[in-house]
Amino acid sequence: MPRHKIIMLLYLLICAQICYSQNKSAMTKKFAIAIHGGAGTILKKNMTELQEKEYKQKLDEALNAGYVILEKGGSAIDATEAAIKIMEDSPLFNAGKGAVFTNAETNELDAAIMNGNTLEAGAVAGVTHIKNPISLAKLVMNKSEHVLMIGSGAENFAKQHKMILVDTSYFFDENRFNQLQKLKQTEKTKLNHSDEQGDISNFKDSKFGTVGAVALDQHGNIAAATSTGGMTNKKYGRVGDSPIIGAGTYANNNTCAVSCTGHGEFFIRNVVAYDVSALMEYKNMSVIEAANYVINEKLMKLGGSGGLIAIDKNGNIAMPFNTEGMYRAYKKSSGEIDVLIFKQ
Amino acid sequence: MPRHKIIMLLYLLICAQICYSQNKSAMTKKFAIAIHGGAGTILKKNMTELQEKEYKQKLDEALNAGYVILEKGGSAIDATEAAIKIMEDSPLFNAGKGAVFTNAETNELDAAIMNGNTLEAGAVAGVTHIKNPISLAKLVMNKSEHVLMIGSGAENFAKQHKMILVDTSYFFDENRFNQLQKLKQTEKTKLNHSDEQGDISNFKDSKFGTVGAVALDQHGNIAAATSTGGMTNKKYGRVGDSPIIGAGTYANNNTCAVSCTGHGEFFIRNVVAYDVSALMEYKNMSVIEAANYVINEKLMKLGGSGGLIAIDKNGNIAMPFNTEGMYRAYKKSSGEIDVLIFKQ
Repeated sequence: MPRHKIIMLLYLLICAQICYSQNKSAMTKKFAIAIHGGAGTILKKNMTELQEKEYKQKLDEALNAGYVILEKGGSAIDATEAAIKIMEDSPLFNAGKGAVFTNAETNELDAAIMNGNTLEAGAVAGVTHIKNPISLAKLVMNKSEHVLMIGSGAENFAKQHKMILVDTSYFFDENRFNQLQKLKQTEKTKLNHSDEQGDISNFKDSKFGTVGAVALDQHGNIAAATSTGGMTNKKYGRVGDSPIIGAGTYANNNTCAVSCTGHGEFFIRNVVAYDVSALMEYKNMSVIEAANYVINEKLMKLGGSGGLIAIDKNGNIAMPFNTEGMYRAYKKSSGEIDVLIFKQ
Repeated sequence: MPRHKIIMLLYLLICAQICYSQNKSAMTKKFAIAIHGGAGTILKKNMTELQEKEYKQKLDEALNAGYVILEKGGSAIDATEAAIKIMEDSPLFNAGKGAVFTNAETNELDAAIMNGNTLEAGAVAGVTHIKNPISLAKLVMNKSEHVLMIGSGAENFAKQHKMILVDTSYFFDENRFNQLQKLKQTEKTKLNHSDEQGDISNFKDSKFGTVGAVALDQHGNIAAATSTGGMTNKKYGRVGDSPIIGAGTYANNNTCAVSCTGHGEFFIRNVVAYDVSALMEYKNMSVIEAANYVINEKLMKLGGSGGLIAIDKNGNIAMPFNTEGMYRAYKKSSGEIDVLIFKQ
């Protein structure tokens, strides 16, 4: 072999080695995911051991659905979507299958997702035939120039992209329906998150909470996603904070990814998700300081109840809430993992 | 008259005097209002003198509708609503009567209003029978526990509060309809704000811009309001930034009141209205510094075109835009007034 060919071959081998090392290093970067299944009046004394186990198992399943994607080098967007789909498909949470009933005895679903790397976002509100609203939000982000689509218009977009629409009966749940009837009799709109859990039978009838996920992937990108059925007995096409970028959902690689749960109106008026980011960017707060300050000071002063999960580019996770409990879990590439419901 | 009665009478007279002075002092505090009628490719060479006069007259009328309310000691909320109603009732602007057509040949309107004193807010999206969406947004704020209502649900709320709904034909405008047909033929969705004004006849067919207002009243309270018909040829129930608290509309007595206009998706993803507030609160920027930074630096870097109007509690007004022009006007209790269209 001529000398110049040997040199060329050696050069290529060295290049390949560098490339492999770089990829390996990229692929061993830290990653993490955190999820929530809603915050509210969630007390240990009102739950059976079995109920607690059911919730923890489902949270664990959702957490791992996202985690395995991150572990394989997948994106934070895909990880948050996967985690949320598990919770949307479970009747335990107020999102997707478990969505609460509106006053008109329908189920109106909202969801949003945001990519911290590009600041791209997608959201849907008031959809009634979408099994996984989070996937439609992702479709809006990836396949349209828009951020927010509502009602039947959003569903036409779904159809055009071959997403299968489900019959409204998919969302029917007898217990939830009976709860609506009871609530209607009392003629009052009740926030699902602050539902009183007087006894276990009452709790059995309830499905608490918006669901959300935030993640950091091995490429250093973060993402946030949220999905909800809103308020039991809601009227007038009411939309809460979940599908509102900046209020219930926000992500920016420079600061953090945030997903909120709670009394939506307060979260909208206080632009909660973006406020955590702004405090980090403009006041140099850590993600934990910023998240705690917004939930436990700013929001508390105004009487807004709820919580949030947030992650920064280093995988630091905050999960503050000012209610009795919040279904929540996180898992980091360091091996750290926890699945929690009540105050610690 | 017994001595104690004389003392009592004197005491009451002094009290009345103090009371009068306090009221007088409160009523002579400074106040101001600013409005916009949309930003975009607005060039002097493409407008006739008559067109320019028409726009300036309508802006002046809207400005004064709000100003007289402030002058009489009315609220910033009422002043912004009054100014916007004038613009909604005019076919010159893309809001209310002048709303652009969707792809489905309907008119879908969005609006939001926020009270800087209480952080209360109201918004509607995707309504089709509401003559003055800004008044429905105010009704949502004042007469419901909610912030955002969408579609027919929002209209049911309007009906329940005796608001008169108009037939969809109210929004029909032949020029605008023809423009939609032309646009449909080219099979592309076109942002109303960045409409090319190739010649005067083309401009004649176009009605530019979201409308907005911000005001400071004599009680020291500020408010923001925005109303729009969205994008020409929009599909899928697309909603822009106007009805999104934090994105297109925001008000907080501690910082500023903001109303935006431009490429809505960029304004949502950058949480523009609240970002101006956050920069003032967390970075001690003035309203002018913060507004300029967001529109001319942050948004420009991402390719987001548009502008905003903002006012602080001292009546300082910012009106930055990164487009060729923005219909805008302001009037202060000091006597300062200006009605502008093009870059200065």
